[in-house]
Order: sequence, then structure tokens, then C-alpha cells
Amino acid sequence: MSNYNLTMSTDLYQLTMVYGYFKTRTAHRVGVFDLFFRRLPWGNGYALAAGLEQAIEYVRELRFTEEDLAYLRSLGLFPDEFLEYLGDMRFTGDIDAVPEGTPIFPSEPLIRVKAPIAQAQLIETSLANIINHQTLIATKAARVTEAAGDTEVMEFGLRRAQGPDAGLYGSRAAFIGGCNATSNVLAGQLYGIPVKGTHAHSWVMSYPDELTAFRAYADAYPDACLLLVDTYDTLRSGVPNAIQVAKELEAKGGRFLGIRLDSGDLAYLSKMARKMLDDAGLEHAIIVASGDLDEGVMRDLRMQGAKIDSWGVGTKLITGDNNPALGGVYKLVALEENGRLVPKIKVSENAEKTTNPGVKDTIRFYSRETGKALADLLVLEHEELPPYGPLTIFDPIDTWKKKTLRDYEIQSLLVPVFREGRQVYDCPSVQEIQAYARKELGHFWPEYKRLMNPEEYIVDLSEELWNLKHTMIRELRASYTESD
Amino acid sequence: MSNYNLTMSTDLYQLTMVYGYFKTRTAHRVGVFDLFFRRLPWGNGYALAAGLEQAIEYVRELRFTEEDLAYLRSLGLFPDEFLEYLGDMRFTGDIDAVPEGTPIFPSEPLIRVKAPIAQAQLIETSLANIINHQTLIATKAARVTEAAGDTEVMEFGLRRAQGPDAGLYGSRAAFIGGCNATSNVLAGQLYGIPVKGTHAHSWVMSYPDELTAFRAYADAYPDACLLLVDTYDTLRSGVPNAIQVAKELEAKGGRFLGIRLDSGDLAYLSKMARKMLDDAGLEHAIIVASGDLDEGVMRDLRMQGAKIDSWGVGTKLITGDNNPALGGVYKLVALEENGRLVPKIKVSENAEKTTNPGVKDTIRFYSRETGKALADLLVLEHEELPPYGPLTIFDPIDTWKKKTLRDYEIQSLLVPVFREGRQVYDCPSVQEIQAYARKELGHFWPEYKRLMNPEEYIVDLSEELWNLKHTMIRELRASYTESD
Repeated sequence: MSNYNLTMSTDLYQLTMVYGYFKTRTAHRVGVFDLFFRRLPWGNGYALAAGLEQAIEYVRELRFTEEDLAYLRSLGLFPDEFLEYLGDMRFTGDIDAVPEGTPIFPSEPLIRVKAPIAQAQLIETSLANIINHQTLIATKAARVTEAAGDTEVMEFGLRRAQGPDAGLYGSRAAFIGGCNATSNVLAGQLYGIPVKGTHAHSWVMSYPDELTAFRAYADAYPDACLLLVDTYDTLRSGVPNAIQVAKELEAKGGRFLGIRLDSGDLAYLSKMARKMLDDAGLEHAIIVASGDLDEGVMRDLRMQGAKIDSWGVGTKLITGDNNPALGGVYKLVALEENGRLVPKIKVSENAEKTTNPGVKDTIRFYSRETGKALADLLVLEHEELPPYGPLTIFDPIDTWKKKTLRDYEIQSLLVPVFREGRQVYDCPSVQEIQAYARKELGHFWPEYKRLMNPEEYIVDLSEELWNLKHTMIRELRASYTESD
Repeated sequence: MSNYNLTMSTDLYQLTMVYGYFKTRTAHRVGVFDLFFRRLPWGNGYALAAGLEQAIEYVRELRFTEEDLAYLRSLGLFPDEFLEYLGDMRFTGDIDAVPEGTPIFPSEPLIRVKAPIAQAQLIETSLANIINHQTLIATKAARVTEAAGDTEVMEFGLRRAQGPDAGLYGSRAAFIGGCNATSNVLAGQLYGIPVKGTHAHSWVMSYPDELTAFRAYADAYPDACLLLVDTYDTLRSGVPNAIQVAKELEAKGGRFLGIRLDSGDLAYLSKMARKMLDDAGLEHAIIVASGDLDEGVMRDLRMQGAKIDSWGVGTKLITGDNNPALGGVYKLVALEENGRLVPKIKVSENAEKTTNPGVKDTIRFYSRETGKALADLLVLEHEELPPYGPLTIFDPIDTWKKKTLRDYEIQSLLVPVFREGRQVYDCPSVQEIQAYARKELGHFWPEYKRLMNPEEYIVDLSEELWNLKHTMIRELRASYTESD
């Protein structure tokens, strides 16, 4: 279990297309694909890119084993010479990507793949799977930690995650998004994320009474004793017993950390428990809260003066709650024809769903005065922008909405990750990514980070890209409506 | 990636508790835990058990490697003698479980673990993770296939799944819930699920025009040609081009399978496309629909007479959409004291959250006349029921609601899976599980399978269990309220 060849974690239609390209001798043609999303989850103002390290690992290890080829042969869809070709296939193309932890917006390429079309097509599904998942959870974590302010957030979701990977990589993404710790031991082992946890109700229930259970726990953890106080009755039993054990422990030179509340009204209970702890001289004891939390509940509890120092957030963080998929797509934007890359477009009745053609990058403009992000601009790769401004940009739908940017610094969001199949990017640690994400989010005004109804950040197209797109739309529609 | 030791996929507090039990010399005491859920997702009338095979594999392979122990040592929480103990730990207990594909209801144990408490505690997180996930997706798939009636459903969700495992095991669970095929090649390889797929928009875009693209595809798949017709304009371009290629192909003795619609109004487009295909003599061609589908949309499209033969369902099936976690919990229900198992209970202010104590099974009553399920009854393990009735049962909350069951056959839902650490259960294939699920669902009246507002199936407690539970609640509350 959880020990399989990710190369096979793809959609059958990728393989049928790859065989189609192979059969029509076009598999080597270079195609460029953008991975991007169209809509921000939970009405958030931005998303936080994540998953690149696992995406890189997947591409680097791409290869079909003999066993894989035997299975594919058994489908009766593919001739032997194609299976031989697949067996030899390695990724030989270029990939550019937005570094993990970067705030990112709809229609901006998270990953740009430039490779023989057979390869670029084959890797679509797993790239989307990995990036969609981790970007979603990192974004949710950013919301949760925004709601937590300067209090601690622990990711407690493993048991409710959609399988072991969702727990592990979800924990990784949650840390990138700002969580301080996880309950997931594997995530601690693999990524060095601080692991935290105390005990469950079953611990208390396995002793004749709560006090005995607490004493036994304090005995096992004299230097880090945190007690779950809601097994029977939080204020009448749990907190008084915890206080008694705390005093006994501290009398022996031990260290009482605090209590955890896992049910009931957390605003009321935390305020009452705080008072009881303080009255007992345990001002240093912290109060941890858990139980079906999300950023909305946390914000409201804090507004009501709940005395909570640390939050254990599980199900709604690790799954994305009511929006469990980012919905990222992977679209062909250019294709080699006679030795040069020709822009491609996918039109749709829905203007939002029409793709942006050509080999692109996203340019982010920062004010030199405030350091804050001003806007993003999708540009064609070869475009050069005035380095400090001024530059007038316009909304791609309501083109009369213009904005002139002045006195700025610019940054390209995409960085080289693979060149001719060779990895040219060193993945930072998750600790570095978390720090980078915090720094980058600091470049955005709070208006964009409001949990509900945030200001919409400007993402425009360069004039050249806009003209290219609209020329292509006109030509394409003319080509199949001329017979009307 | 996806190659790690699942033994470490657990919450830290399981390990801190295991050490607590070890330190207090109680790790060997036998505890019994139930894994169950409290609420049905999407207002469905039942859930479909799934994930047991992976849960068994996890328990069978349970062991900490030297590397794992080195990491745990680095946390500074555990002394060496405990890490040695962990290194030697294997699962030596008993597990009983509901077979995959069984319809199951709130508060019924899906898994019952009876093992030294240290082991039983350690495995909580991954058991919950695996069973929660697959049971959720199998249940969603049962809804989707219910909505599809006798048309085909293909699971297309991999790119939107929460990581590779969620795609793979989600695909497995979706098949158990009744899906006919998957796009996921890995799921096909590992579980023998039929894999399906044709081509993407990028295939069409990589040719100078749609007709050329369709001809190239027909050339690659002369015996299984299914064309995606919405890249440019479904009715003005896609369908006419597909019909032309179909005729060319059939003139050459090839086999045209049909078309796929992936956008637009699927009711209107499918009806128009059906007519165009029929008028062209392609009555045998099927119409596949995809694009953000779920059981509600499918039901409505079918009610409006959409001519859809096969459905590709992705995001909302593979994630569970707005209810992405089953919320299953794992609770201590009995503990060895002086050589015998003593029932345990976790009370809560919320009556629904108070657990059912004792070592239990679920008995399902079937009418001998109709073969239909009449009710389920949670019973204590030793209880004997009259084999054919009559038996009067009562609602555990509104105890005046009584029902007398007559002329029934009974079946225990739990089957032995591990005995003293040895696996005693042969996992059926997913094909067998799917057939079993279909048969078992056939024992339920349609009232319980309605997508919205289904009739609530009766799940009562035996009189003995009810009395035990209420005696324990009274005694427990008395014990910590006597000082009031």
C-alpha cells in the first residue's frame, strides 16, 4: 500500500493520445501547457502555491516498468512498438513553475511545461493531482492561520484525510500555509514539521476515574503535561482535576503545560477555564481548543474573547471542507509548427473559460515606496516591460478599467525547474517555504487577505497578449461559422 | 513519493498514549474499540462500507523500522526501552469488520478491534483514515450510479483527487459503489477495474483543424473511436465532423463508438446530437457526457430527456464534494479489568454523541416474505435473539416508538478478520465486492435509497444494551455531580 509507480497514476486518455501522437509521428513535436486554476476557493483573495517538490519528484522518476507495460499490453489497445517507446520514455523537456508559498491568482500559470507533446500530455494528470491538492490545502491553512492571528495552529486532520497521502501531503501543505505543527508523525519524520499531541478520551476512560488518569499521564510526561479535560464534565470534573494534578506535578518540579477543550461552547468554557487556572496560580498554563474548527468559528470565538492559545484544526483544514478541489486545469497554449512555437487557444462560450494563448509568464509589480504588490500582468515570454514604469494596464474584460503603475519593481513568478529533462531547481525545505510564504503575503495589503469578501487583486493581460488572444478568437470563430 | 511506512501515518498522541500505557504497565490490557460514524453524508439513506482490504494490509504490515525509531528517539519524548518495545510491536489482537460493500448506518461498528490497548490505540488513526475515505467515496458513487439508472458511469476524478492515494483508493471505492469504469490507469492495473478514456481538447488543438484531428484519432483507434466534440462548437463543428469521420471509418470497416460532450447544456446538446447521429444512420453511436457532474445534475438531465448513455464523473465524486469527510470515530467500548472485559462509555451533553458501551455486533433483520431488510439492532455480543421472531424493538431516544418484527431471518454484520494477529479473512476482489454491494442494496426498499429526503432506516439498541447504556450514564453522572 502506498507503494506504487506514480507513472501509472494517469488517465487512460493520456496514453491513448500519446499513442495517437506516436502513430501519427507527431509525438516529438514540442507543446507548451499551462497548469492554472480559474476560481479561488472559499471566496479567498488569493491562493498559495504548493506541491512543487512532489511534482518534481514525480517527473524525475517518470518511467514505465516491465510490469506496467505488461498491464498496458493486456488492454489490447497498444501495439508492441508503442509499448517499447513508452518503456524508453523519460521526461526530456523544460518545466517552469511558481515557487511553493507564492500567492497566486486565477489564470496565472502555476506550472508551465514545454516538452515533446507526448511527454507533456502524459504528465498532465499527476501534475494537476499534486498541485491542485497541496495548493488547496495551503490556501485553507493560510485562512485558518489568518483567523488565528498570533495564536498557534496545529493540523490534526489525518484521520479525516482522503487517504494516507492526503494526510501526509495535506500536512505538508498546511505547514506551508502557516500552521505551526501537526499531529501526523509521518509528516514530522519526512518534513521535519514539529509534531504535537497529548492524549484522547480513551486514555481517561481506561482508568477508574479522571483524576487517576491525569496522574498517570503526568507521571509519564512530567515535563510536558497537557490534559484533555472534557471526557466527563469540563468545568465540574476536568478542569478541577487538571488543576489538582498540575499542583502535584509542579510540587515535584514537573512542568504542567495546560489543558485541551474538545467539545462544548469553546468561548464560554475557555473563559471559565482560564479563570479557574489563573485563580489556581496557573497563569502559564495554555488552553488548547479542538473540535470541528475552521477559520470562521475561530474568528468568531476570538471576537467573543475566547481564551484560546492554540488550535487543533482537523477535518475542515485537511479536506478543504465545502470546497475540496481547486479545479486546476492544464491547457495547450503553444505548439511547434515548422520549428517554431505557434500560440494555441481553447475558446468557450464562457469568456472566463477561454484560455490565454502563447508562452507566458506572470509579472508581479511591487511599489518601490511601500513594498506592496500593485498588480499582476500576464505577458508573453519575449515581452520587455519598462523596469520602473510608468505602465498603463487594463482589465481584460472591462477594457475601459485602466490603471497606471509607477515607480515599481517587477518580478517574474515562474522560475526554471527542469531544462532538457534535467532538474535545475533545488527544492527548499518546508520551513524555508513557510517563511517565504509569510514574507510574500506580507507584500499584500490586508484588504486582499480578508476572510470574507476580500478586495479583488488585479490580474491583467499585457496589450500584446490581449491582442493575440482576441485576434485568435475572431479568426477561430470565423473559421467554423463561415458556413452559417 | 507514495513509498513510506504507513505505521508512521498516525497521530503523535497515539504514541504518547502508548508510552503512557507502557510506563504504567497497562499496555497489555485488552481494550475493545468501535470504529463508527454518526451522520450520513449528503442526507443519504445509508453508507456503503469500503476500505477494509487496505485497512487489513496496514494492520498486517504494522512495524516500526530502525529509521522510524531513530526519528522517534530524536523527539526526546520516549526512552530507549520504550522504543525497543515499539520496534518489537506487531498486531496480535482480534479484528471484526463489516465486509466491504455492505450498507451501513450511523452508530454501527464498521470495525471492532479487540487487542492490547497499546496496539488498539496505535492503529486508530490509519484505520479511521482509510475506512472514512473509502466509505465516503463508495457512498457517493452509490448515489451517482443510482442517479444514472441503467446508464454507464465512469469515474474521471484523478486530477482533482486529494493526492495520488485519494485518486487510487477513491477509484477503487467508486467501483465498489457501482461505477462501471475509471480513467485511472493505476486503479485498472492494481484492481482490474475497466479503464476508459478517449482524448482531450488538446488533441484537437494540436491539429490544424478539428476534422484532421478526428481523422487522425480514427486512424489510431479504428476499432474504438470516440470523439470529443466540444473543442470549438459542438453542434456546428464537432458533431458534423464526427459524423463525417464516422462514415469514413465505417466505410473502411472500422468501428465508430460515439461522441463525448464536455461543456454546454448537456440536455439540449445531447438531444440535438442524438438526432444528428440518428439522421446520419449512426443510431449505434453512444453519447458520453462529462463536466462537473454529480447525482443531482444527472438526475435532472435524465428527467429532461437528455440522451446520455455514459457519464464521466470527476471532481464531485472523487472528493465527496461539499461533504468531503465521513467523520468516523473510534471509541473505547470495553476494557479488561481483572481478566474480564468491562463495558466503557463516553458521555456527552449531546445524546447522539454518547457512545454505546460493550462488545457489540449489529444484527440485520430480513423479512422472509419479501427478502427486504426490516431493521438493524445493535446487540451485546453474547445476546441470543429468537431466530425467526417475533421480537419487539424500540427507538433508543423516543422509546415509545416500538416495532414488532416477525417471520424474519437475521444476519450479523461483523465477520472475523484477524484472530490473535493472524488474518483469517480472504479479501474478495473489487468485482466481487461490487456485485455483493448491488445484491445487498437490493435488500433495501427504494424509499431508503431516494437521493433526497430518504426514509430513515431503523437502527435500535437491544433492550439489554439500552439498559446497560442508561445505567452507566446514570452512574457516571452521579459520580461527578454528587458534590453539586
